[in-house]
Amino acid sequence: MSRYAKPALEKIAPYVPGEQPQDRSYVKLNTNESPFPPSPKAQAYAANALERLQLYPDPECTLLVRSMADSLGLEPENVLLSNGSDEILFQAFSAFCDKDRPAVFPDISYGFYSVYAEFLGIPYREIPLMEDFSIRPEDYYGAGGTIFIANPNAPTALALDPDAVESIVMNNPDSVVVIDEAYMDFCGTSAVPLTKKYDNLLVVQTFSKSRSMAGARLGMGFADAGLIGDLKKAKYSMNPYNVNSATLAAGLGAWEDTEYTRMIVETVKANREYTAGALKELGFRMTESRTNFLFVSHPALSGGDLYRRLKGKGILVRHFDKPRIDDYVRVTVGSREEMDSLLEAVRGILEET
Amino acid sequence: MSRYAKPALEKIAPYVPGEQPQDRSYVKLNTNESPFPPSPKAQAYAANALERLQLYPDPECTLLVRSMADSLGLEPENVLLSNGSDEILFQAFSAFCDKDRPAVFPDISYGFYSVYAEFLGIPYREIPLMEDFSIRPEDYYGAGGTIFIANPNAPTALALDPDAVESIVMNNPDSVVVIDEAYMDFCGTSAVPLTKKYDNLLVVQTFSKSRSMAGARLGMGFADAGLIGDLKKAKYSMNPYNVNSATLAAGLGAWEDTEYTRMIVETVKANREYTAGALKELGFRMTESRTNFLFVSHPALSGGDLYRRLKGKGILVRHFDKPRIDDYVRVTVGSREEMDSLLEAVRGILEET
Repeated sequence: MSRYAKPALEKIAPYVPGEQPQDRSYVKLNTNESPFPPSPKAQAYAANALERLQLYPDPECTLLVRSMADSLGLEPENVLLSNGSDEILFQAFSAFCDKDRPAVFPDISYGFYSVYAEFLGIPYREIPLMEDFSIRPEDYYGAGGTIFIANPNAPTALALDPDAVESIVMNNPDSVVVIDEAYMDFCGTSAVPLTKKYDNLLVVQTFSKSRSMAGARLGMGFADAGLIGDLKKAKYSMNPYNVNSATLAAGLGAWEDTEYTRMIVETVKANREYTAGALKELGFRMTESRTNFLFVSHPALSGGDLYRRLKGKGILVRHFDKPRIDDYVRVTVGSREEMDSLLEAVRGILEET
Repeated sequence: MSRYAKPALEKIAPYVPGEQPQDRSYVKLNTNESPFPPSPKAQAYAANALERLQLYPDPECTLLVRSMADSLGLEPENVLLSNGSDEILFQAFSAFCDKDRPAVFPDISYGFYSVYAEFLGIPYREIPLMEDFSIRPEDYYGAGGTIFIANPNAPTALALDPDAVESIVMNNPDSVVVIDEAYMDFCGTSAVPLTKKYDNLLVVQTFSKSRSMAGARLGMGFADAGLIGDLKKAKYSMNPYNVNSATLAAGLGAWEDTEYTRMIVETVKANREYTAGALKELGFRMTESRTNFLFVSHPALSGGDLYRRLKGKGILVRHFDKPRIDDYVRVTVGSREEMDSLLEAVRGILEET
């Protein structure tokens, strides 16, 4: 840190993104990307937008917001787009948390929640997951703060059922509940319809996973008009032109191409079951994944060892050096070929062990 | 505001972007966009990137950062890219300001400075411009806070000379000085070389104006490695994947195509002189523009009137309803055809007055 930075910056430990080594090519299973390129329609719409990049994007993202609202049975005032879902989460911490509204989230979840809280000087409370990594809804009733729950959760891959989500929302009538559904398309039971019933629920989703657009940066939030209005106030106080024109156009194409998204989701789910079955046969333990990744451990290997030895064989996965989960690695479900490369490498490692 | 938002959000008046009316087509001279599409090379590089949008962008933006550093005689550690220059300004407010480091900026300048300060709860002090809208460098010596100066300034269009900028940096040895050079390419005397001499200087620029990429959202900062490190800490605490892959690719194409950028800049400067001359003949007063816009007033019309009557004739300009400048409108310098449409509309208005 330079001597010019504010002292509070010293204490902050920023988020560490998944590594992107440039030294050789890897089978990249460490950041939960899709193995497919974006929909041809998304690519065509975006290519078309490149000719008019001299003009600022529409800060209200009118066309895509309307299309999304229409197909979800919402109004445009219930939808907000952002530069990746990380941004809308940051807006939510900015708008809904302060010293009287601490952030509340599971002790094992998306690593960014505590980073946002620390960066913004917001107190926070972590609620331990159960021994099996599941979330007990009752632990969040009357939590006395703004709740952030990734559902399905990461890196545990486990999902709460819709009734459990509703019970948390219902039992926090004076607080905002943010349900971060980055991986929901691989699970299937979104809380978006509940936003029509509860004005304290914000559901966050992304185009990064099931729509193959991690590189385009497009996230979205769904909520009652009141919460969306608060988030817009944050957006217009930070970066009104947050979503660029090519991404907006690509987003419209991807949103319209529901058939392509379904193909991605079904393929990834089939590859998930295939890989989970093969890994179990090799002695791996794992949670029941409702996402596009597997959270696995092996009795003969530490998580760190498995990560390093896979990397040595050209397979990148993610290891979190954190209490309770350091035995595990998180493995993105990719194409069938990538999964076969993973399994081959794993078999090699187990033979050498 | 909903009843769930933190009370501090109530007081904040967000930034208001230039209007983008959808009711009819306008000659759009209200947001200082370029009249040219982006460089063909920028478009081609971006189109190429669309096929791999399923992968997260490189958060370090390695390729473009290296190319920029090389051509400016800097190291990669002296360069940071952002989702528009607004974002890097927000990072600077986040990293370099707190209650002991208030923000200091001119009373008439980019409207976002006070919005950032209010949103982040940072005290700020506005220093009045001189009667002729110029900045007196001495007013900023020993300012006792983090200084933000747009150079050239907006909406006044006036520039400080490099010696004046250096004197401000030199006379604030314990504070960061941010020079916001969004319009510098139309002026010609950047402070970037000074970042090698002073470790408290951050220079911010953008691809939005001279490189015709407002829709792509790409801004950049140049500074000593210490300040860039602080800004990176802010970036990795908010949104590490802030610049999307298509924009990164377009940025590399635009950066390499220096000939195209020169063509834009020279054309806009010629159109600026042409339009300024014609408006002066029609009785307009104006500052000496070193930007891609003109800041003009007419003795026979209030700024609000001029704005509204131009809009009635299909010409959008920007009017700021603020003390000292409400007699003025800000007019983007566009293509020769757009300037002729503006002049024709102005002549019509003056005849009707």
